[in-house]
Amino acid sequence: MLEFWYEFASTYSYPAAMRIEGLAAAAGVAVAWRPFPLGPLLHRHQGMTDSPFNVVPVKGRYMWRDMERVCEAEGLPLTHPSQFPRRTLLAARCAVIGLEDGWTPAFSKAVYQANFVADADIGDPEVLRPLLAEVGAAPDAVLEAAQSEPVKARLKDLGDQAGARGVFGSPSFITADGELFWGNDRLEQALEWAVRHREMTA
Amino acid sequence: MLEFWYEFASTYSYPAAMRIEGLAAAAGVAVAWRPFPLGPLLHRHQGMTDSPFNVVPVKGRYMWRDMERVCEAEGLPLTHPSQFPRRTLLAARCAVIGLEDGWTPAFSKAVYQANFVADADIGDPEVLRPLLAEVGAAPDAVLEAAQSEPVKARLKDLGDQAGARGVFGSPSFITADGELFWGNDRLEQALEWAVRHREMTA
Repeated sequence: MLEFWYEFASTYSYPAAMRIEGLAAAAGVAVAWRPFPLGPLLHRHQGMTDSPFNVVPVKGRYMWRDMERVCEAEGLPLTHPSQFPRRTLLAARCAVIGLEDGWTPAFSKAVYQANFVADADIGDPEVLRPLLAEVGAAPDAVLEAAQSEPVKARLKDLGDQAGARGVFGSPSFITADGELFWGNDRLEQALEWAVRHREMTA
Repeated sequence: MLEFWYEFASTYSYPAAMRIEGLAAAAGVAVAWRPFPLGPLLHRHQGMTDSPFNVVPVKGRYMWRDMERVCEAEGLPLTHPSQFPRRTLLAARCAVIGLEDGWTPAFSKAVYQANFVADADIGDPEVLRPLLAEVGAAPDAVLEAAQSEPVKARLKDLGDQAGARGVFGSPSFITADGELFWGNDRLEQALEWAVRHREMTA
């Protein structure tokens, strides 16, 4: 099993979300999707109230060029969003709701595509509504539940868990034995670790 | 041709320095070694006066664990230095001097091993002296020249060049057509890019 911790505003989490299912299936590793809010951790660890890629423009310029190369190599379309980062709490709360019914992976990929391909405002419930319908969820019920205190508390708790486990960025991967890997470019190593650990404990 | 920009205090630059010659030779790509001082760029871009891995401890903890994994996978020994980061200006100025006589690659690898394997103070001229002798340089002459204004100016100029080319971290790789790659984990992609570009312009 591999935990996949992701924030919808995170650029490199988009290719990770699109790649993880195929690679994990090939490795025979189950994936536990873990949406979480990265903002509070960036603020706590680094005092940031904006994306690191906006705070440090030279890093931002590099990141967008690197993202172009990464997505091109993976055959993934990419649009530089007209707004970055976007509000993601509502989408993340919807993703939390979907965990029990199994539509979180498909919904999460759709949210990333909305943000980084269609350049749509994923903070807008009207943008999320068709994405929810497409994965078989009931948009009205989900969007209403997403504003409820229990769901807000569950997402906040995931953020607290992430922080307690050493997560400071997205995407992050945590193996069953607690090994943390950060970044889309560490996905393969994380899966290899998960396979090795499974063999050792089997 | 691929430019390899590196700062001796940088952890991930150690495996990059140990790997680049073999991978570049296999790809038929020449490597231009470019020692540079990263500190001024970290200060200018991010207001930092210490390693980012000290400024943000949660990132530092991750980095050291990740370095263990990276080095183990490459069969490279690694010691967590008792002092981090170390003073690197003197070693970098020596490396600049070696470019004309061709001993910079061997000397640079020795400096990384001194810092990250032997846990030696690479800011101390007495630590650098045997490393210089081993690569066939004249330690007394090199250490004296390293304190001269022209050599200091050459290293500072390399730092200015790095900043002007978009470098913000180490290791960085720049291809002949100006494509920037950051991080030990981008070395393979940088070489692939260099090979593709060479074929396109040949």
